[in-house]
Order: sequence, then C-alpha cells, then structure tokens
Amino acid sequence: MMQKLLAELIGTAFLLIGVIGSGIMGETLADGNTAIALLANAIATGCILYGIITTLGPVSGAHFNPAVTLFFSIRGEHAWRDFTPYVVAQVVGAVLGVWAAHIMFDLPVLQASQTMHRTGGAQWFSEVIATFGLLFVIVGGVKHKPDTVPPLVGLYITGAYWFTSSTSFANPAVTFARGFSDTFAGIYPGHIMMFGLMQLVGVGVALLILPRLFTPET
Amino acid sequence: MMQKLLAELIGTAFLLIGVIGSGIMGETLADGNTAIALLANAIATGCILYGIITTLGPVSGAHFNPAVTLFFSIRGEHAWRDFTPYVVAQVVGAVLGVWAAHIMFDLPVLQASQTMHRTGGAQWFSEVIATFGLLFVIVGGVKHKPDTVPPLVGLYITGAYWFTSSTSFANPAVTFARGFSDTFAGIYPGHIMMFGLMQLVGVGVALLILPRLFTPET
Amino acid sequence: MMQKLLAELIGTAFLLIGVIGSGIMGETLADGNTAIALLANAIATGCILYGIITTLGPVSGAHFNPAVTLFFSIRGEHAWRDFTPYVVAQVVGAVLGVWAAHIMFDLPVLQASQTMHRTGGAQWFSEVIATFGLLFVIVGGVKHKPDTVPPLVGLYITGAYWFTSSTSFANPAVTFARGFSDTFAGIYPGHIMMFGLMQLVGVGVALLILPRLFTPET
Amino acid sequence: MMQKLLAELIGTAFLLIGVIGSGIMGETLADGNTAIALLANAIATGCILYGIITTLGPVSGAHFNPAVTLFFSIRGEHAWRDFTPYVVAQVVGAVLGVWAAHIMFDLPVLQASQTMHRTGGAQWFSEVIATFGLLFVIVGGVKHKPDTVPPLVGLYITGAYWFTSSTSFANPAVTFARGFSDTFAGIYPGHIMMFGLMQLVGVGVALLILPRLFTPET
Repeated sequence: MMQKLLAELIGTAFLLIGVIGSGIMGETLADGNTAIALLANAIATGCILYGIITTLGPVSGAHFNPAVTLFFSIRGEHAWRDFTPYVVAQVVGAVLGVWAAHIMFDLPVLQASQTMHRTGGAQWFSEVIATFGLLFVIVGGVKHKPDTVPPLVGLYITGAYWFTSSTSFANPAVTFARGFSDTFAGIYPGHIMMFGLMQLVGVGVALLILPRLFTPET
Repeated sequence: MMQKLLAELIGTAFLLIGVIGSGIMGETLADGNTAIALLANAIATGCILYGIITTLGPVSGAHFNPAVTLFFSIRGEHAWRDFTPYVVAQVVGAVLGVWAAHIMFDLPVLQASQTMHRTGGAQWFSEVIATFGLLFVIVGGVKHKPDTVPPLVGLYITGAYWFTSSTSFANPAVTFARGFSDTFAGIYPGHIMMFGLMQLVGVGVALLILPRLFTPET
Repeated sequence: MMQKLLAELIGTAFLLIGVIGSGIMGETLADGNTAIALLANAIATGCILYGIITTLGPVSGAHFNPAVTLFFSIRGEHAWRDFTPYVVAQVVGAVLGVWAAHIMFDLPVLQASQTMHRTGGAQWFSEVIATFGLLFVIVGGVKHKPDTVPPLVGLYITGAYWFTSSTSFANPAVTFARGFSDTFAGIYPGHIMMFGLMQLVGVGVALLILPRLFTPET
Repeated sequence: MMQKLLAELIGTAFLLIGVIGSGIMGETLADGNTAIALLANAIATGCILYGIITTLGPVSGAHFNPAVTLFFSIRGEHAWRDFTPYVVAQVVGAVLGVWAAHIMFDLPVLQASQTMHRTGGAQWFSEVIATFGLLFVIVGGVKHKPDTVPPLVGLYITGAYWFTSSTSFANPAVTFARGFSDTFAGIYPGHIMMFGLMQLVGVGVALLILPRLFTPET
C-alpha cells in the first residue's frame, strides 16, 4: 500500500511539474502570443501524462486524480478504504509538484494565484464536459484496450486544453494545487470550489452514461 | 443497437466539440496568426479522433461519418438497415457537439456560419482527395493492422488539415454541423451541399480504387 | 505486381501531396514566420508517412523512394527486375502528387521551382546524413521491431526537417518532383542533380555502416 | 562489444545532431520568437530519441548517456568493465554529432559556447529533477512495458524541455558536447561542471527512490 501511495504522490507531483513548469516557460518565451504558450503547455502536459501513466499504472492504477478515484470507488472497482489515502497522496503530491516547479524557475515557493478569469458558467460547463470526457476515454480504454490508456489520456488532455474554455483541469487535486501558483496555469483560490464541484458533476454524468456505452447489450 | 447509436452520437458530438472548440480557442489566442490557430485546431482534432475511435471502435465501428457508413454499406460490410439510424445518430451528435462547444465558450447556441471562403473548384477537389484518403487509410488499416486505425485516422486528419485547401472536412455530418457555427471552423450553409457532394465523389473513387490496392492479386 | 506498383504510385503521390500541400498552406497562413510554416510542414509530412507506410507496407514494402529501393536491391532483399518499375511508379506518383496539390490550392498545374537556396556544401552534406539516417531507422526497425517502421520513418522525417539545413529531402523521386513546384517546398531544377547524387552517397554510407550495426557479432 | 560501442557512438551522434541542428534551424527561422524555436527543438529531439532507442535498444541498450550507464552499473544491471568504453563512445559520438551539425549548417566546426544563462540554483535543481525523471520513466518502462521505452523517453524529453528551466540536459555527454557549440542549444563551458554534478545527484536520488516504486512490496 505504501508503494501505491508513493506512486500516486510522485506521479501527481510530476503531473503538476509538467503543468506549472511548462506554463511558466511558455508564457516567458512566447512574447505575448498566448496560443504558442498554450500549445507548449498542452503538449508538455500530454507528454508527462503518458510517462506517469505508463510507468505507474501497473503500480497504483495511475489515478493522480480524486475524481478518477471517486469514480472507480463508486463503481466498486477500487476499495473504499483506500479512497482517502489515495486522495491525500494526490493532493500532497500536487502541491509538492507546484512548489518544485516554482523552485525550478526561481520563483517564490509560496504563492496564491491572482488569475481571475477561470470562472463563470461557460467554464463550469467546460469542466463537466472535460471530466466526463476524461472518464469516458479511461473507461473505454480499460475495457477494450488497456495498453492504450496512457496515450488515450495524454492525447485527450492535450486536445482538451484547446476545446474547452477552462483548458480542462478535470482533476480536483490539480485544481487545488494550481491555486498555489500565480503563474500561467494558476487559478484564483476563490474559484477552485466551483471547478471542483463541476468536476464532481462530470463524475455523476459519467456514472450515468458510461455503463450504457461500455457494457454489452442484453 | 441502441448502444451502437449512442456510441455514434456521443463520438460524433465529441468530434465536433474538438473541431469547433479548438477552432474558437485557437482563433481567440493566436492574435491574428492563423497558422498557429490551425495547428492547434489540427492537433486537437487528431487527439480527440484517437480517443473516440480507440474507445468506441469495438462498440459501433466508430464511423462518426456518413461517408464511411455509406462506403461500408455499399461494400456489404455494414448492414443497410443500419444505414439511416447511423447517419441520424451522427448528424444529431454532430449538431449537439457544436452547441456544446458554443456553450463552453459562452457564445450564442444557435448560429449560422458566415464563413464565405469554403467554396470553389480547388476546395471541391480537395474534398474528393481528402475523403478518398480517409477511406484509404481506414481500409488499409482495417485489412492489415486493425489496431492502428485510431492513430491512422487521427494522424491522417491532423495532416490533411494542412495539405488540402479545404482543411479536409471529409465528412458530411461534420460539414452539415459546421454550418451551425459562425466561428473559425464554420462553413456558410449555402456551401455545404457541394462539399457533401464532393465527399460522395470521394467515396466513389475509393470504391473503384481501393479494391485494387488492398485485395490480393489473383 | 501491378498491385505493388499501384501502391508505390499512390503512396508516393500522397507523400508529395503532404509535402507540397502543407508547405503551401503553411506559407500562406504563417504570415512571414517561416518557423511555423516549417513546423506544420514537418508535422503533416510525418502524419502522411505514417499513414502510407502502415497501410501499404504489407502491399509493396512502402518504399516510395528510389534510394530505399536501390539500397534493398543491392542488399539482395528486393528483386533487381522490380527495380526500374518501382522507380518509375515512384517518380510518376510523385509528379502526380505535386500536380494534385497545385490543383487543390488553385495554382497553375505546371510550374518550375525558382527556389534558389537549396544548394551548397552544407546542404549536400545534409542530404548524405539525412539519407543515411533514413536507411538507418528503416533497417534497424525492420530487423528488431517491424511494427515500428511507420512511426520510425514518420518521426524521423519530422525531426530531420529541423536538424538538417536541407530539410531532409532524402529521396530522389521526391527531390525530382519538388522541382515542379514553385512553392514553399520547391527546389530549383538545376539543383536537383546534386541533391540526388548526395542521396546516393548516403546509400553508399549506409551500405558500409549498417551491416556493422544490425548484424550480430561473430 | 565493438557493435555495442558503435551503436552508442552513432546513436549519441544522432542525438546531438537532433539537438544542435534543430536548435540552429529553430533560432534561424523563428524570427525572435524563442517559444517556437524551443517547440521545434523539443519535438525534433523527441523524434530522434524515438528513432535511436527503438533501433539501437536491442543492440547496446541505447543508453547514449553516462548517467544512465552509471545508474545501471551501480544497480548491477550493466557490467562495470563496460562502463568506461560506453562513456567514451558516448562522449566521442556526442562531439562528432555537434561537429556534423555545424557542417550541415555551414558554421565553423570548432566553437565554444558563449551562452551564459545556463547556471544558478534554479537550473541546477532543474537538472536534478530532469535526470531523476528520465531514470524514472526508463526504469518504470523497462520493468512494466519494455516496448514503450522509446516513446517514454522521447516524450519525456520533449515535455521536459518545457517544464524545467534548464530545458533538461539530463545527460553529461550531451552537456559536455553542447559546450562545443555557440548556438541555440549551447552551454558556456564553465557551467558544464555544475550541470554534470547535478545530473549525478539526480542519479543518486533515483537510486534511493526508484527501488521503492518499482519493486513489489513484501
């Protein structure tokens, strides 16, 4: 069990290093062209997701995301007694990842995001769709071709950065940790709660719809 | 059968979310540099295609495209009685996907495209080539290495955004639905018919040529 | 045999459609930023290479390149009597692909390139390295993991667009056909001969070195 | 053994051709937008890594990196008597690759980098994380899915260019050789030693942590 929690912690830390670090680098170099910064941010995030899911999937299941852990717990595919330890490891790893990124870019470790634009109905709806879509590719991949889950998730998120107005956080631990970074990928702490709530709604939609898509008709 | 139609509907909806959403995001952020917007648009579309074909291929065949359904129906590889239900599910899914993208980006749900440049002989010829090429990689992949169909289609379309002047719609349901969006990826409704017709010509060319490429010599 | 030649012709045509078409689109949209045009050009070329090699490899071997056909003929892995027909099919396909791209972008079909900068020792040396590297990944892939040849070649060329000053033509049929296009990817006809010669030198270097890399020590 | 050393030499030479060459091309074309240059640099490097690891992994293990060779030697998974020959082959190959890139871009062969900004605590910490992360994906991939090591390393490095402030050298032979190039990817020779030292620290961290992640609990 300690190995699984270590895997969730290190994997989530690397995920946030990828998200925050590439956001900082992108914004710094892109000279005001946000599209190029977001493209680098999306590609780097997809790359690190491929890495951590391929290597840690056989260890912990490679959730790195409380919404995923919750979804599998409700479906009876993950033990409830492991739910809280998993989420704690994910949240701790996420925050450590943010701090590591700050150190790597010579920024103050402790920050609070002042990025105010991550709110409003359009972005909330985006988070519902983004989280549903994430669970959709995970469940479909696990059922039909488990070896494809790492590229499925990596490519889905790379794409979803672009086709949702929220850039698809789709992960409560990632959302929480991004509140601690006043950089490109940050989110104002007061807006975290609604993003998290909408991600839970996405889990609910997935619980309703996915069994109809990925269970054989009878 | 309901499961297959649900798969076609949801898959096509996500395809249009990818196409329209990333087009809006790209145009918004790229600050007038259309090449960067199209690059993001092309990459995001390829990513979502990989996801929906990998996960839904084993469910419905992952057509998401009336041209593909027509092609396989004529070849006797898809039941004719399923043709109309498939196309209806694809069209409904496509339009719902466009509307979902509009909601995610806080735009009016109901729109009609004013994008007037998607017409003329060069673009019509592009649609013939684009549709033929799409069927070419699908048929070749299905015959020789079925597991590669998701990356084949995703990468083909990512490339074809760039090597055709029409950006390769290659799909009548997608073309129809893009008429409902006055955004980067839209098409003026009056120009839809010719695009669709040319896509059918592409199906015809594929029916003639592909059996010579992918059937053993005798 | 007709099937193999048709495969070489259609595959090489699509390769040139990818190279020329995405070059035109890239230059048109990139608004003077050549790096973005080349990035799109490189990605689109890699995408189409993946498609044509995956689907046509089991049919014709997916050479699409007289340097590759020559290399395998000298090694005794491809029948000499098929050499000339293969090369003819490749060259005809390449030129047809260039013309198809011109039609798709509403340009005069018949053109001669005026791109004068593809000459000089640095670019000639680039073509030697580029061709050697191409044969290197092909031979290594065929020997150790045949299923990886399509991504190997696609990714190698995407990268080699950037790490050689010639953008890695590495293919006499492609080089010849690009002389017929006065667009981004063109080459002045008077400079074709030296590129082709250098590609043959690359074949020679590969014949010397690759057997030492990919044959077991005794 | 000669075959293995030749593989390490040629592979590392191509790695440096990829890094240095695409850096020169990117900087030349990007017209001052460093983000686009780095994006091309990162993609090209990932592409060539995929090629050399796929083809040469079965020959030499495809280290191309003294830090990797050291790590496996300490773990008893690589013979110590092969350590020095491997490192010599890697360093010689790396320098030859740099020189080949210079020739391909018509630059003076012998150069010393004047790039002064690759120093300081943030970048040193970046190299520790970068090297640890590289060993992390290699060890996890080798243990759980050996076939995925080429995309794991290629994608990891593509991402790590962006999420570390040092752009993830993570390789003492590459670091040393980049001192010989006064181009985009160069490093001032006086700053090489600290990068190398930090890479060794990354090896140490990996030796401590990875056995806990990738060994079954008992």
